[in-house]
Amino acid sequence: MLERVLQQIDHDLPASLDRLFALLRIESISTDPAYRDNVRSAADWLTAELAGLGFDASVRPTAGHPMVVAHDKDGATGPHVLFYGHYDVQPVDPVSEWKSPPFDPKLDVVDGRKRIVARGAADDKGQLMTFVEACRAWKAVGGGLPAKVSILFEGEEESGSPSLVPFVKANAEELRADVALICDTSMWSRERAAITMMLRGLVGEEITITAADRDLHSGLFGGAARNPIHVLTDILARLHDRDGRVTVPGFYDGVDEVPTEVRSLWDTLDFAAASFLGSVGLSEPAGEAGRSVLEQIWSRPTCEVNGIVGGYTGEGFKTVIPAKASAKLSFRLVGDQQPERIREAFRAFVRKHLPADCKVEFADHGGSPATRLPFGGPYLAAARAALTDEWGVEPALVGGGGSIPVVGDFKRELGMDSLMVGFGLDDDRIHSPNEKYELSSFHGGIRSWARILAGLGSQA
Amino acid sequence: MLERVLQQIDHDLPASLDRLFALLRIESISTDPAYRDNVRSAADWLTAELAGLGFDASVRPTAGHPMVVAHDKDGATGPHVLFYGHYDVQPVDPVSEWKSPPFDPKLDVVDGRKRIVARGAADDKGQLMTFVEACRAWKAVGGGLPAKVSILFEGEEESGSPSLVPFVKANAEELRADVALICDTSMWSRERAAITMMLRGLVGEEITITAADRDLHSGLFGGAARNPIHVLTDILARLHDRDGRVTVPGFYDGVDEVPTEVRSLWDTLDFAAASFLGSVGLSEPAGEAGRSVLEQIWSRPTCEVNGIVGGYTGEGFKTVIPAKASAKLSFRLVGDQQPERIREAFRAFVRKHLPADCKVEFADHGGSPATRLPFGGPYLAAARAALTDEWGVEPALVGGGGSIPVVGDFKRELGMDSLMVGFGLDDDRIHSPNEKYELSSFHGGIRSWARILAGLGSQA
Repeated sequence: MLERVLQQIDHDLPASLDRLFALLRIESISTDPAYRDNVRSAADWLTAELAGLGFDASVRPTAGHPMVVAHDKDGATGPHVLFYGHYDVQPVDPVSEWKSPPFDPKLDVVDGRKRIVARGAADDKGQLMTFVEACRAWKAVGGGLPAKVSILFEGEEESGSPSLVPFVKANAEELRADVALICDTSMWSRERAAITMMLRGLVGEEITITAADRDLHSGLFGGAARNPIHVLTDILARLHDRDGRVTVPGFYDGVDEVPTEVRSLWDTLDFAAASFLGSVGLSEPAGEAGRSVLEQIWSRPTCEVNGIVGGYTGEGFKTVIPAKASAKLSFRLVGDQQPERIREAFRAFVRKHLPADCKVEFADHGGSPATRLPFGGPYLAAARAALTDEWGVEPALVGGGGSIPVVGDFKRELGMDSLMVGFGLDDDRIHSPNEKYELSSFHGGIRSWARILAGLGSQA
Repeated sequence: MLERVLQQIDHDLPASLDRLFALLRIESISTDPAYRDNVRSAADWLTAELAGLGFDASVRPTAGHPMVVAHDKDGATGPHVLFYGHYDVQPVDPVSEWKSPPFDPKLDVVDGRKRIVARGAADDKGQLMTFVEACRAWKAVGGGLPAKVSILFEGEEESGSPSLVPFVKANAEELRADVALICDTSMWSRERAAITMMLRGLVGEEITITAADRDLHSGLFGGAARNPIHVLTDILARLHDRDGRVTVPGFYDGVDEVPTEVRSLWDTLDFAAASFLGSVGLSEPAGEAGRSVLEQIWSRPTCEVNGIVGGYTGEGFKTVIPAKASAKLSFRLVGDQQPERIREAFRAFVRKHLPADCKVEFADHGGSPATRLPFGGPYLAAARAALTDEWGVEPALVGGGGSIPVVGDFKRELGMDSLMVGFGLDDDRIHSPNEKYELSSFHGGIRSWARILAGLGSQA
């Protein structure tokens, strides 16, 4: 059956491209209110496409741009997956730098490789259509999908997703699935697919330390009066030990080691730590001792001061002992670290080290847990096998150091992990003029999803 | 002879007041170019007064407002002293809050005490005239001064003294004396005089630490990339040990203990550390362990961070690892600590603790050594005896935590220490509307200088 589906995909590729081009022609820029109707048109177009495939599809209003929700859960014996993508795109400025109009998609050939050039080609219309076209091929050949599929398309991703959490909360029962499939990431290289199987979580905190009730003259009071900058720097300096480990008690609760198999795989990835750091003017990994750079940025938690300010910071000099000093910190979380426990442990740490006459205020800048697929679980296994079959080489299993909001939202609101497989390339110029998506990404992406669906279905 | 001088002072007090009032009527606001001619008039007036007393007096041009320089060195057997005061005054805004016009001096009576009310009454025209009138009385009675006296009156003190150092440098030989006498400070209380016998010096430094060559996303790079805020806070936190002592090697070279006699005297001063700290919302001395608050602010050196900034400091949150972070620091110096040695020791300390991939830049914000009168020396002894005789109680021997620029300038440029005796009171409202100088300050001040001159002369 899968072979017939793949043949259908190959055969239907020109029509798949036509459909993608139709979607790319819709100017669905979500950040600019002038394009509101265009964004709506894209939602309508997708809904019609999915309905045409037999999905129970609808445009669903939000306070902002609408969501598209579609279900095809009957008949399949496989697990229930929720596919997520976004149909809105970035603005196109500066238009003068585009070699062809951003909403007039064309197939270019560069160095013998075909590429789809248009705003949204890679981010994320081309990527989400790989999944739609895979579903279409399965339906065309076999009459049904091998897994229970729900789809959520968002129209505000490029605007910070203001409606996503309210919508997910309000429709939690409808949207909750066994796993989320997200197609908004990149391949490891043009020849090798990648599965983002873990993303670090995040806790944002701000602390303000106050000592005297006004700014003091450092000549009159210096030596006797508490300086809150000293208190702050002292506390911040205590947050790491000599080996770069975070010293907050309980910080590493829930942090586990990446399995040996994965770590070995990371060691074989052609990742050049020297050029990764060298690209920004650095030469030595600065984090936890004894960890590779990939571990440091993918699988280890961090505590970073992202901003600090206190006293006089203008031109010249002022001999002031300020009344207060403050810092913004972020914690990157992994494994089962709990954002609110980390926040409380940090606050307790600060209070414990606060000297006499000082007060501290905290501001909560939000948090979300890390998300990851179980290393030995069925979804990861299905995706690995499918991508190996399609690309002829084991996919890279990567982590993500930063958070992808929707992944955290799914984890927090629905308790659902995400399997992130995307077919973008590093030189796709997303958010920039002349954005492109290679035809090999589009074609291989459709085939990859067809295989992944087959793999998920076989696990029923 | 001294008794006759004192009688002459008492007898001449109404005329002394008239002369002071004449000076107070001159609107010598140095910060406002509109008053340029008035400032010049005050210089002319003082030069004429001093010439009338037999001084070799002249108005001396600078790039800004002029200096008044006068000498009366012949005939006296005592040491050579340079008296310093300033004839410019602060602006008078808000004028509406003055109960009488600021340049129309009057003698008010409040709680049975007479006070001279005018801009500059205390800061510093009233104070500098105490010395002029003391010289006048000596001249009137005995024909000559007991010590060799030079005088320097500045017209830019309230504007930051931009011409002082160039003028002192250019006229070093003319201005250098055995000791400087400065009348621009306060009494310990209305009944007790004070000698400021030591002032801390100052070194200003700014450091900027750079790691990556651009701001980084803390998700992508966090855990592997060097964070210059961490580097900065770590170095700053190392600057003090648990006992509040500065850890920079060599920092305490040249720092000596205040003599037991002086420390005992400080212990008997009615200085309430609790209310000193309490007035700004603090309760515990934060500096070096085992030191009294007066020691901490007068006789101990400090290292203070006066400003710090790095990364994102606006509203909300940004997960950035900044490219750089910086801090401004000041060191208060005592004893024989050398500003440039302190600066170099600090810079070496920073460089020593700088990790890989970091660069540091330093900015020099100036420096001046501490100044103090030798505890057992003749000038301090003469002033103590004279003030005890005049006020009936041993004067408080105090330190000053902040720098008075002219004192540092005299020390640095001329190698000359300063004896600071002033008769202001804490409630004189200098720089504010309704500035006043009590008649007892003016009268007692003249008598005090007459006695001090006698004491200095007897040491020849």
